[in-house]
Amino acid sequence: MNNNRYCVIMAGGSGSRLWPASTTACPKQFMDIADTGKTSIRSTFDRFSSLIPKENILVVTVRKYKDLVLQSIPELDESNLLLEPYARDTAPCIAYAAYTLYKRNPDATMTVTPADHLIEDEEAFRESVTKAIGFAEDNDILMTLGITPTRPDPNFGYIQITGGSAATQKEGAIKVKTFTEKPDVSLAKVFIGSGEFFWNSGIFIWKAGTIIREMERHMPEVTRVFSGWEHAIGTPMEEEFISRAYTDCIKISIDYGVMEKTDKAWLYPARFKWSDVGTWESLYGCIGEKDCNGNICNTAKSLTEDCSDTVMYSDTKDKLIAVKGLDNYVVIDTGRALLICPKDDRKLKEFTARLSMPGFENYR
Amino acid sequence: MNNNRYCVIMAGGSGSRLWPASTTACPKQFMDIADTGKTSIRSTFDRFSSLIPKENILVVTVRKYKDLVLQSIPELDESNLLLEPYARDTAPCIAYAAYTLYKRNPDATMTVTPADHLIEDEEAFRESVTKAIGFAEDNDILMTLGITPTRPDPNFGYIQITGGSAATQKEGAIKVKTFTEKPDVSLAKVFIGSGEFFWNSGIFIWKAGTIIREMERHMPEVTRVFSGWEHAIGTPMEEEFISRAYTDCIKISIDYGVMEKTDKAWLYPARFKWSDVGTWESLYGCIGEKDCNGNICNTAKSLTEDCSDTVMYSDTKDKLIAVKGLDNYVVIDTGRALLICPKDDRKLKEFTARLSMPGFENYR
Repeated sequence: MNNNRYCVIMAGGSGSRLWPASTTACPKQFMDIADTGKTSIRSTFDRFSSLIPKENILVVTVRKYKDLVLQSIPELDESNLLLEPYARDTAPCIAYAAYTLYKRNPDATMTVTPADHLIEDEEAFRESVTKAIGFAEDNDILMTLGITPTRPDPNFGYIQITGGSAATQKEGAIKVKTFTEKPDVSLAKVFIGSGEFFWNSGIFIWKAGTIIREMERHMPEVTRVFSGWEHAIGTPMEEEFISRAYTDCIKISIDYGVMEKTDKAWLYPARFKWSDVGTWESLYGCIGEKDCNGNICNTAKSLTEDCSDTVMYSDTKDKLIAVKGLDNYVVIDTGRALLICPKDDRKLKEFTARLSMPGFENYR
Repeated sequence: MNNNRYCVIMAGGSGSRLWPASTTACPKQFMDIADTGKTSIRSTFDRFSSLIPKENILVVTVRKYKDLVLQSIPELDESNLLLEPYARDTAPCIAYAAYTLYKRNPDATMTVTPADHLIEDEEAFRESVTKAIGFAEDNDILMTLGITPTRPDPNFGYIQITGGSAATQKEGAIKVKTFTEKPDVSLAKVFIGSGEFFWNSGIFIWKAGTIIREMERHMPEVTRVFSGWEHAIGTPMEEEFISRAYTDCIKISIDYGVMEKTDKAWLYPARFKWSDVGTWESLYGCIGEKDCNGNICNTAKSLTEDCSDTVMYSDTKDKLIAVKGLDNYVVIDTGRALLICPKDDRKLKEFTARLSMPGFENYR
């Protein structure tokens, strides 16, 4: 395998949209929410191990999840575990990883991936990623893997591609016209109708040097907190330096901070079945078979009546879930908490946001 | 205490209306569903122990619940534990107990009580029962304790009393005009409006000889299966005899078989707070404090929004139950099963009746 190829697994998210299945004590990336037999972060590690040398796979997470990472990936060398003092969204996380890799190897090409995606066709995944890595190695660009949309989901970023010409399409990759943050459903419908849009998978591929230059150009408020820190990497000073840098750093996503502004974005259309496991709506269909009324249950036994389009989930796999009279709800049961709420993502988010009130500390 | 006074605790019910909190493996009488600190059958035993000699308290249950009875009442002598081969409703159960007691003591007065009632004012209870027992000892009548209705509940039997005269009211007891099996809500409203009706508490008091004569008169199809069996009582032949008798016996309630037909029914108005724990509707208010929207939750923590008149129950007492968008539902959670259903008793009964289908054996 090519020793200049690296993978950075981002594993610092709190997975609050899947509460109570996912909690801040054990977010979804450290769970096997779709019952695959492995935690999501372990699946991600294994998926990339066939493409990239294991010693070149890094994990970035927040400090409190260090033990959870090592439980899933005990063979991970601690020098490949970058610990953030607290979550600051994807841009600072990627900056931390990019500066680290650039110091290790100025020729590094890095594939950045969330830790919690569900990917069904591993062979197609490897083929897509390998081609995209090759393209990123040969070109001074920022590559993203685009997913063909199947529904007007307002929870994804959308990527518009340029029309076909020799300059904007080569080797299967397509130059990006615009990155669009989560649109509303009606706009998402227009996007899908146009045929020009892909979902942003959140998987990015680029040379460490390229992303550093683009971050310094478009996001200097982030990169300046890291400037002059290279001497600290891999020394006992790293933790202190990172604590200081993160304290000063704004919370910002790489999409908003760089991808929407750069003229170097390209897209490779992914050919694998994918779920970002971001919401119950996106997980819908991945955790069980739909019955004829569109209900899904992950447990051994369910009984429904006057019930439709409802997700039923329990971490007690042999539990019977018996539901009458719910339409388009989620029913999420764990040993600690039970959530029953309309499946609408906005309602879910607003309702579970109330857990930030005092008194719910033990349940978040 | 008067040695002619006996108590018969009926503990053979399967409590299916409170499924899944109550299951056939452990019905509600062997649980502490209202979180009082004791199982219901233990509370019933203790309540009567202050009125009736302990050695005169009998329990009738089906054979499979023998161990559950003895777990709650380890001091119960096995000669006071009458085991039915299967449940045949209250009439055969009462016949078995009445013939047993009459053989032991022809002067026996028996108080018959369900094992699962919730009674809040124990002092008032003792006072009411003591007066009713005294009246039954002095008169050749069938006494019932009547509960003043608080809502037009269609799940209770209703008892109409006669108008006042010296012949029909004495020592606080009132002669009964009619027993009415569960009416519909509109009829129940009329009953309550008239001021002439009480709920049938299911607690009966009579001399063993009196109830035997009334059963033989109104319900010979039941008593004939027991005829000639007295020689078997307390011998190794009892179990075999009872198995044969129950096989031949119809399933019938004492209300339908005797109380609706007899002219010997009297009522003593109970002055204690009572719930028959028969349905979630009747338990409503006994398992927790209502919030301002009429929701009740028995666990340490709940979070509700757009939610009203809903019962939330879990056997995991520190579980958070978070519910949005349910009106008049029950949400019942146990380690084995989760039920979400409109609170309407008929809908609940019809829905949970589907558990009799194959495949649900382990969950009933």
